This record gives sequence, C-alpha cells and structure tokens, in this order.
Amino acid sequence: MTNKKAVLAARPEGMVKQSDFNISDNEVEEIKEGEILVAIKYLSLDPALRGWMNEGTTYIKGVAIGAVMRCFAVGEVVKSNNDSYKIGDCVSGLLGAQSYAVSDGKGLTKCDLTKGPLTWHLGVLGMPGMTAYFGLLEKGNPQPGETVFVSGAAGIVGSTVGQIAKIKGCKVIGTAGSAAKCKYLVEDCGFDAAINYKEEDVSEALSKHAPDGVHVFYDNVGGPLLDTALLHLGRGARVVICGAISQYNKKPFYGPSNYMKIVTARGYINGIIVFDYISEYPRAIDDISSWLKEGKMKTKEHIVKGIESFPEAITMLFTGKNFGKLLLEV
Amino acid sequence: MTNKKAVLAARPEGMVKQSDFNISDNEVEEIKEGEILVAIKYLSLDPALRGWMNEGTTYIKGVAIGAVMRCFAVGEVVKSNNDSYKIGDCVSGLLGAQSYAVSDGKGLTKCDLTKGPLTWHLGVLGMPGMTAYFGLLEKGNPQPGETVFVSGAAGIVGSTVGQIAKIKGCKVIGTAGSAAKCKYLVEDCGFDAAINYKEEDVSEALSKHAPDGVHVFYDNVGGPLLDTALLHLGRGARVVICGAISQYNKKPFYGPSNYMKIVTARGYINGIIVFDYISEYPRAIDDISSWLKEGKMKTKEHIVKGIESFPEAITMLFTGKNFGKLLLEV
Repeated sequence: MTNKKAVLAARPEGMVKQSDFNISDNEVEEIKEGEILVAIKYLSLDPALRGWMNEGTTYIKGVAIGAVMRCFAVGEVVKSNNDSYKIGDCVSGLLGAQSYAVSDGKGLTKCDLTKGPLTWHLGVLGMPGMTAYFGLLEKGNPQPGETVFVSGAAGIVGSTVGQIAKIKGCKVIGTAGSAAKCKYLVEDCGFDAAINYKEEDVSEALSKHAPDGVHVFYDNVGGPLLDTALLHLGRGARVVICGAISQYNKKPFYGPSNYMKIVTARGYINGIIVFDYISEYPRAIDDISSWLKEGKMKTKEHIVKGIESFPEAITMLFTGKNFGKLLLEV
Repeated sequence: MTNKKAVLAARPEGMVKQSDFNISDNEVEEIKEGEILVAIKYLSLDPALRGWMNEGTTYIKGVAIGAVMRCFAVGEVVKSNNDSYKIGDCVSGLLGAQSYAVSDGKGLTKCDLTKGPLTWHLGVLGMPGMTAYFGLLEKGNPQPGETVFVSGAAGIVGSTVGQIAKIKGCKVIGTAGSAAKCKYLVEDCGFDAAINYKEEDVSEALSKHAPDGVHVFYDNVGGPLLDTALLHLGRGARVVICGAISQYNKKPFYGPSNYMKIVTARGYINGIIVFDYISEYPRAIDDISSWLKEGKMKTKEHIVKGIESFPEAITMLFTGKNFGKLLLEV
C-alpha cells in the first residue's frame, strides 16, 4: 500500500507558491498497538494553513520542512489496533495532506453521518462551521434587529456566519469578490445585501445598507476593508476578528489606522479561536445540521481531485478562485 | 474689564504650531439674565485639544476658526444673574482659553475645595483623573496580582492609572520619555518598573518586567508602542485605548499591525470616553481625594503663566516637555 503525500518543501516569503510543496510516496507503515490506519477521503484547504507554513505561530507550531503538510481531513478507518475505533468508522482531524494516516486516535472526531455527508464534516459541520457558530454567537453576541456585517462572506466561514445571523433575526450584509458570489449570498444564503469589494465603494455601500451602523462586524479579511468597517461601527459594536486572509501573504501586515473608532463607538474588538470551544461542538453540530435539514441554511463546496493538486489548490484560497468550501478528493 | 483670549487662527496640518493661535483682547460682555461671569484662574492643557482643532471629530465638534480655543478651566464666579451660582463659587468646565468667561452655568461643575486645591480640579480630580479612574476600573477591570502596563505613564492620566492599579493590588509597569520621569514613577508613584522608551528596548524590558504577560494595557500613546504591547499580552488581556498622543499630529495615523494578537490572547480591545461616566464622577472624586489625603497617591503639576503662553504651552504636550499636569495660570 502506497501513501501519497504533500510535503512542505520551503517556507514561503509572501505569497504561497506551488513550489513550496513536494509530492512524494512512501510505503504505508504497519500500525502498532493502540493505533489505527485511516484511508483519507477528503482534505480541507483552509486559510489557517498559510500560518502553519511559517516557522511558528502563537497558538500552534509551524510544520517542519520535509514533513507532511498539516491539514484537516476526513477518512475511513481501514485497520484498527485501538478499541475506540472499528473498521468502517469515519473520522476527522488533523490527518495531514496524504492518502493514508496512522493515528493513535487522539484528537480525532468520529463523523456522525446522520448529521450530514462526510464532506460537510470538513466544512459547515467542521472547523469552519464551528468557527462561524461560536465566533458569531459567543463573541459577536448578535441581537434580533441588529446589523451584522461579514467580510469574506462567500467563504465557508462567512456564508455560515451570515446565515446564522439571519436565523437569529439580524440584518446581514457581506462582501465578496465577484458578482456571482454576491448573487449567491443574496439569492441562496438570504443576505440582505452583498457588496462586491472589487467593483463597489465599500464605505458608500455600507452607508446605504447600514445607515444606523454595523453592530457586529465579523472579519475574515483584514486590511483596508477592516479600516472601512471601523468607520461604520454603530454604538456598542462588537468586532470579531476571525482572520485576515488579505494579509497572510503580505509584509508588513496591515494595521487598522481607524482602530480608535472602537472607542467612540463604545464597542470592543475581540476574536475567535475555535479550539477553545471543542467541548461545545456537539450542540453547534446539532444546530447547524438541523438548520441545513430544515432548509434554513445552505452550503456550497468546491472540490478538486488528487493529492498532486494540493499545491495548486492552496493558492486558490488566496486568489479567491474557489467558490464554496475548498476540498480535495483524495 | 478686559478679556484676554487665545483664538484658533488656523487648522494645523500635522504638528500644532504656535502660529495656529492668535492672542487678542476684548471688552468683557455684560451678563444677561441667568448668566454668570467667571474670572478664570487656570487653564488645562490636554491632548484632546489637538482633536478639537480639527474640522470635527466623531464625538465633539471642532472649534471654529476665529473662536476662543476650547479648553477646560477653573475660575471664580465674580458676577451672577443665576440662582445656582453665587459670587465666590469656584467652578470648572469648558470655559475656554481666556481670562473671563460668560456662562449660563450649563455643563459647569462646582469645585469642592475640601477635596483638594483648585488646580487639582483640572487634573487628578478633573477630567484626566476621571479618565484614569473609569478607564482603568470600568474598562480594564484589573484584578489583584495582575500586571498593568501604562503608556505615557508620567502624564496625569498615566500616573493616576498606575497609582490606582497599585492601590488595587496590581504589579504596575509604565513608559516615559526621560530618566527623570522614570525615576518619578518608581520613587514617587510606586510603580514596580518604568521603561524609558527613548533609551530602552520596550519589548525586551516588558519580557523582563512582565514575564507572564500584560493583563491590562492602558494606552495613552498609540503608534509602534501599541504594537509592542500587543506582543506581550497575557491570557484574557484587556486593552484600554485612552489616547494616541504619538499620532495626533501625524498622517497617516499608525495602525497596529499586531492587532490579531488580541485574538490569540483571548482578550479584547476597548476604550474610554470619560463623558459617559459624568453621573459617577462624585464617587471617583471621593476615592481619589481620600487616596491623596492618605498619602497613597501623588500628583504633580507643571504650571506656565499668562494667556500669551498658551500657544507655546500646547506644543509642550506633544514634545513631552511638560513634567506633571500642564496648567496655565491666567
């Protein structure tokens, strides 16, 4: 049995390049006592991967040069020396960019396929969905009738945030980088307005769509868009920093010069680290699964094929070429 | 009776200049029904004045060209057609940079001289003291044993913040721009450490003095110092934005590129607008007055003389030439 894998070859300076990865093969190892072998079905391509390619971050170590690239994945247990897992179980976790993973089972989650198909466990029912759910509800505290503004709204986190905010009775505005994505947000996801940041003046559009100001700003993007949003904060606004995808490949990292607007808005800026909520994932999965089944929420996937596509796929995240949760089918 | 006044002559671009003001005289007006005449004793020179010289800000209108410069002042009622005020009352409020002010009494506060001398009512018992008290206690929520870091610590706000934090059982570190100011902070104000930001590497000094991180950062300064402080936040840190004196004369205004550190610190950034606490000033004045009388707190004043010194005095705030609360004796 052969394991095909994407290995980190170089630490990128600036934009991630396909040459930062090598594709290689190795013989699948024999599993030891307590271990399982997982045949990986899908890899998840998330913006967080860019940070993990660096030497180190504040909350998780960087991937070593020559090591399999860290990423979330789902797969099926095909061998087991661990009583907690039996052959045929579907699991998700940081299994890495490869076709087979040996694991001691720690940090893995069993995927309950009654909640949704396997791929959803990497998206709307996985880390991105949990980030949306807990970031919005626990850190943004949206109240019915308030205006929620989401950047990077056509991404899996952004579209989930916006749809949960709608379910909670908020007015929802989002930004995206194409007319098709904006149409999707309004027509499929039920957003009240979508702003194409590449074509429209975001500040003007916010003045129009959020005349009383933004009460919750959920930021996936950072950069000048964050500065613009700060100008439109309403009284008592909560800013939830989730990511800064516009900046992950840039140096210097853009600092928001309008940060003092949080003072006059009498609001606060905080952020979401999803791992803090692991023990509460089950209720979020139950809620989101129900909303999806009831048709109150939609999710969209963009699937590329083969481990050899991994280096190209990761660059798509930062150019906005994907439309829907980006997955790689092994 | 002649009123001498400092009038706004021009809106500064960048650093405030002495030529942005004219000194002129006018005859003191007769007071109408309901009005009082105040003989101003002291003017307060505060960083907020720089913002008021602009066209407008988010929370208060800019001063008109040709108008008396807005500033806090204290004085004595010398004529009264208002039953709420009698001759001899000492009052404080936005009386302006002049020697006599006509007022209808609205927005003025009577100074209780049993709480402290008249000048203190512009400093430690006035707006700066209130800003320190409510910003630290209501927005910073310091707990005993936590580490509080204050920028611009030798200023009236910073030194009051640090001393209140000490009274509340915190470890206190501050920055200032001279050896004499640092000595004052440690020897007179009881700070655990003072960092001369012009001579020392602030990040190295914070690593040494706050090895477990900063739990409350009270920022009066902004700029690169804010970015440095963000790197040293402890778990659950609160950042209280009070001001950004390093940036008020600059364009572009410096944005903190390390803002995402608030996310990994699981903290939040908020700020203080002191006017929100007007109804609660009495308890703050009681507390601070008691601490001063009991010798638990000290305050320092830097007094210049004569309205004609106003244009020069305002520039001192931004070059750090004053040492102690800057006041102008009329």
